Amino acid sequence: MTKPAVDLTIVGSIGIDTIETPTEKREEILGGSVSYACAAASFFTHTGMVGVVGTDFPQEFRDTWTNMSIDLEGLQTVEGKTFRWSGVYHENMDNRDTLSTELNVFETFSPELPEDYREAPYVFLGNIHPALQLHVLEQVRNPKFILIDTMDLWINIDKENLTKVIGKCTMLTLNESEAALFTGEQTLNAAAKQLLKLGPEYVLIKKGGNGSMLFTKDDVFLLHAYPLDRFKDPTGAGDTFAGGLMGALAASGKTDKEAIRQAMVYGSITASFGVEEFSLERLQQLDRAGIDARVAEFKEMCLL
Amino acid sequence: MTKPAVDLTIVGSIGIDTIETPTEKREEILGGSVSYACAAASFFTHTGMVGVVGTDFPQEFRDTWTNMSIDLEGLQTVEGKTFRWSGVYHENMDNRDTLSTELNVFETFSPELPEDYREAPYVFLGNIHPALQLHVLEQVRNPKFILIDTMDLWINIDKENLTKVIGKCTMLTLNESEAALFTGEQTLNAAAKQLLKLGPEYVLIKKGGNGSMLFTKDDVFLLHAYPLDRFKDPTGAGDTFAGGLMGALAASGKTDKEAIRQAMVYGSITASFGVEEFSLERLQQLDRAGIDARVAEFKEMCLL
Repeated sequence: MTKPAVDLTIVGSIGIDTIETPTEKREEILGGSVSYACAAASFFTHTGMVGVVGTDFPQEFRDTWTNMSIDLEGLQTVEGKTFRWSGVYHENMDNRDTLSTELNVFETFSPELPEDYREAPYVFLGNIHPALQLHVLEQVRNPKFILIDTMDLWINIDKENLTKVIGKCTMLTLNESEAALFTGEQTLNAAAKQLLKLGPEYVLIKKGGNGSMLFTKDDVFLLHAYPLDRFKDPTGAGDTFAGGLMGALAASGKTDKEAIRQAMVYGSITASFGVEEFSLERLQQLDRAGIDARVAEFKEMCLL
Repeated sequence: MTKPAVDLTIVGSIGIDTIETPTEKREEILGGSVSYACAAASFFTHTGMVGVVGTDFPQEFRDTWTNMSIDLEGLQTVEGKTFRWSGVYHENMDNRDTLSTELNVFETFSPELPEDYREAPYVFLGNIHPALQLHVLEQVRNPKFILIDTMDLWINIDKENLTKVIGKCTMLTLNESEAALFTGEQTLNAAAKQLLKLGPEYVLIKKGGNGSMLFTKDDVFLLHAYPLDRFKDPTGAGDTFAGGLMGALAASGKTDKEAIRQAMVYGSITASFGVEEFSLERLQQLDRAGIDARVAEFKEMCLL
């Protein structure tokens, strides 16, 4: 019996997080970009995870993923401890400080894709070292759509490789401050224009609770964030957004602008659920009908 | 020969501003909430200005308003100097520091409405002392729609009168930090819910370059800001937005939600032009066709 081939391959970090917000502290919870992204994508399409954990990784966390029907063939388990991250959020939750980072098994991670992952038409390279992102791109075979994410660290220490990866992707996503850091531009319009020149068809700028903007050479698409009554933990919101986007896009089978706009709505709404609780706690309780209901409510809010 | 009656009465401050941005410094330029608001409203409807200037007020500034067909019967000219404000914007233009404030003739300002202004169906009370806003509300006769604006100063020093004014208006507008200051709430949803309990049908929260949100008891409307390639001076953007909104709403003759959503789009787009230059310089060069063209472009950007 062969397993079903994945439609979407996601590569990224897996961490055990300790997170403090103004009202709560949670220790040793499931985190990491690929965990959030695969969870979000799993509502829409068959998704394969590429990442690494140590031999200390709890079975309970692994069960969380299998319960969401995420394909784990690309998950490596390596002798040693899992990557750990700890951070504290400031009063308004807009900013956070990293308290500690222990790379552990993540330090020597080299992503290797199972056979069917290489054929996946949709690929999302979460925030990992650009050299590793390039290594993944050497393994995939003619994907229809490649999204890459990054972070300020790589812009600061390996802009050369990052620029190479950007040149090979269909869509680049980054947040406002990363766009300013990379380009030195003061407006997002100007920053996006510069980034588009590096090769991607799309530049998606994330603005947290203020929504997101999708730039192409010809136009801009503006998307709000769903306004929440309360939220607990913004960790992984960008990964959840991107994962949901790629999941919905893979489910559509399309790559055109209209399909991308719709996929962004699904990604954004999935992320709005994710931040309501820590880790994957809210997403584990969610189903597609819940997402669809909020998408409908959201569209009403945006009617011009 | 009688002059045409105004459809919209706007009350607020008139100032001579000195403004420094990271790239430019401009001295003694036309400013003030009622100046920006009336200029924006003038594209849509016949607007009357209520404010005060000193005998030093330049004829050139008065001409700017008359060239925009703003009715100046409610403008008082009083022996003395005009209100002056000076401020400096920080690097990202998000924050500014006030360098000096000279109230001058504005200190003893008591708004008195000409006969036809009292009958205007639409009234916008710009950011002035809540006791003066109450004084205006005693003069108007059964308006269809009253918008009031305010600022952190009045929340801090006269919340009692401000609460009275809020209880008498149709729509309250304020920015994110003012909403948090007034209510102590952490999310805009929660802040708006509290403010709606004070009486207004609508609470409009301004988020600068991140758009705005309109709350009613039953729903929320989300509006983006038009993404600019460059802008020079954010001073008066909120007044321009609110003035354009009220102008467009007055022109529609309506007060329902759908009309308000459309009026918000017009107000927001008018404000996007205003910040491209200092003072009213860009608005003076603008016409209705220019606004309509950008509204159409903007709606494309928001299509879900």
